[in-house]
Amino acid sequence: MTTQPPGRRGEPSTQIGSLGEFGLIERVTKLLGAPAPPLGPGDDAAVIPAPDGWVVASTDLLVEGRHFRFDWSSGYDVGRKAAAQNLADIAAMGAQPTALLVGFAAPASFEIELADGIIEGLRDEAAGAGAWVVGGDVVRATSELTLAVTALGDLQGRAPITRAGAAPGDLVVLAGTLGRSSAGLALLQRGITDGPLVDAHRCPVPPYAAGIELARLGATSMIDISDGLAADAGHVATASGCRFNLESAVFRPERGVTLHDILYGGEDHALLATVPAGTETRYPVIGQVSVGTGVWVDGGRVSGGWDHFA
Amino acid sequence: MTTQPPGRRGEPSTQIGSLGEFGLIERVTKLLGAPAPPLGPGDDAAVIPAPDGWVVASTDLLVEGRHFRFDWSSGYDVGRKAAAQNLADIAAMGAQPTALLVGFAAPASFEIELADGIIEGLRDEAAGAGAWVVGGDVVRATSELTLAVTALGDLQGRAPITRAGAAPGDLVVLAGTLGRSSAGLALLQRGITDGPLVDAHRCPVPPYAAGIELARLGATSMIDISDGLAADAGHVATASGCRFNLESAVFRPERGVTLHDILYGGEDHALLATVPAGTETRYPVIGQVSVGTGVWVDGGRVSGGWDHFA
Repeated sequence: MTTQPPGRRGEPSTQIGSLGEFGLIERVTKLLGAPAPPLGPGDDAAVIPAPDGWVVASTDLLVEGRHFRFDWSSGYDVGRKAAAQNLADIAAMGAQPTALLVGFAAPASFEIELADGIIEGLRDEAAGAGAWVVGGDVVRATSELTLAVTALGDLQGRAPITRAGAAPGDLVVLAGTLGRSSAGLALLQRGITDGPLVDAHRCPVPPYAAGIELARLGATSMIDISDGLAADAGHVATASGCRFNLESAVFRPERGVTLHDILYGGEDHALLATVPAGTETRYPVIGQVSVGTGVWVDGGRVSGGWDHFA
Repeated sequence: MTTQPPGRRGEPSTQIGSLGEFGLIERVTKLLGAPAPPLGPGDDAAVIPAPDGWVVASTDLLVEGRHFRFDWSSGYDVGRKAAAQNLADIAAMGAQPTALLVGFAAPASFEIELADGIIEGLRDEAAGAGAWVVGGDVVRATSELTLAVTALGDLQGRAPITRAGAAPGDLVVLAGTLGRSSAGLALLQRGITDGPLVDAHRCPVPPYAAGIELARLGATSMIDISDGLAADAGHVATASGCRFNLESAVFRPERGVTLHDILYGGEDHALLATVPAGTETRYPVIGQVSVGTGVWVDGGRVSGGWDHFA
């Protein structure tokens, strides 16, 4: 894989090393705009509201060349994707995202303009989910960029929706789309760099509001689908000690997306939830929970998914 | 710098790649022991108490070869240091640390035993500060290990102690030791691998409890000294719009530690606070705040410190 597109390293004056650590932090703080109440970047730590006395927290790492490539994605896309995948984890607990903290490890030769795009992408995706970038860290790395994003959220007085609460009889509900990121990746690998599926790979659109909506409807379990429907439904089935029966006819894949993309493709960050039978929801019901184990699609057992060390 | 000591990469069966992502997560979860209440690792996100309705959050990255070396430090030391530098940021806000989230980016060939040591170090340092490791992420990287640590804390109903509250007349107070890590690093560079200063470099001992104690005494500002006394006192002087006058006679450096180590050496994670004149504290008063700008030691202005991109 090419991880070093032309233009990533420019003249010394356009590289982040020329700013120095504190110059870089100042630049980032300016790009972020007004800090979150009551205390954003610039101190030892940020202070974030946790009105109901609990905070939801999740962290993810993204490594250049493995999770993104700058010849396929702009800095802005990478920033949005890095934020989205963390904010989706918060939404999957039924919580309202409140804050992001971002660690940025890059070689000193990393382009300032590319770094600016990443920060703007993080900022805008956070804002779209109702959250702020409140803090972070910048350090020098040897080769590739590593982004470490931590997202925090507020349960608004509700109990968290875990993976462990699904019960036989529950309906399986899907919010968001599946398989588009995987189909877009296949196009990029074939040299096709435009279109909605490629855009979906560059920057997923998690249904943040659906997390809270499904929690309010009494969701018994919920998960962010980051590793593919088969794998993530499997995590819920295992944690809840029951069987997921899914029907592929309901997925209705759009043009260019295969059933394989839907079952095994990651990174769309749809939300998979279970709700008690009889619950009325505007999200499609894609199956039902029963006594047993594993994930079954159209009566056949499926398994697998994405292993980051495979 | 050597970043690849003998033994870091062993037989394939002793490398983390052989565990797979989910095997590695299972191993980490087992090493961590009982999860924090109410929800630790294993779901999309962790849930942590924030009893007073606010959460303090800070994030730091540590890169192998730049922030630590496995020929100088054990995995356990690296884990403790990574935790300590983040927990110290929480203490510097006057808060009680509650939780750590840890991102772990390593090549598939990384030694399982070394990874185990890191996790145990993170776990034990967190426990010593009254916190738990509640979540994280593992991804594959190209070359070196990058650790991304986020620490959360609880203000226990107090206002956060920022860098911006010091005022002329305040006393400058120091909790913890300075210059030991820097002196230990110099010894390691000369091939000396034993002794208390080397230990201090491998694993700092931040005075966590002092953060809360000084906050209760009415500290007007506080900072974690991670980049050296001169630089970090400078951050407080700038943020507070005043001048710090320090007296080197009070530092009383121990054998093997120079005044230069104390002023410019980072990574000891002592806490520097200002308290109103007349405050009685068991920590040494090392100076006073006055009208003006900058940091002055024995009447001469100092500046500088550690720049991670220099």
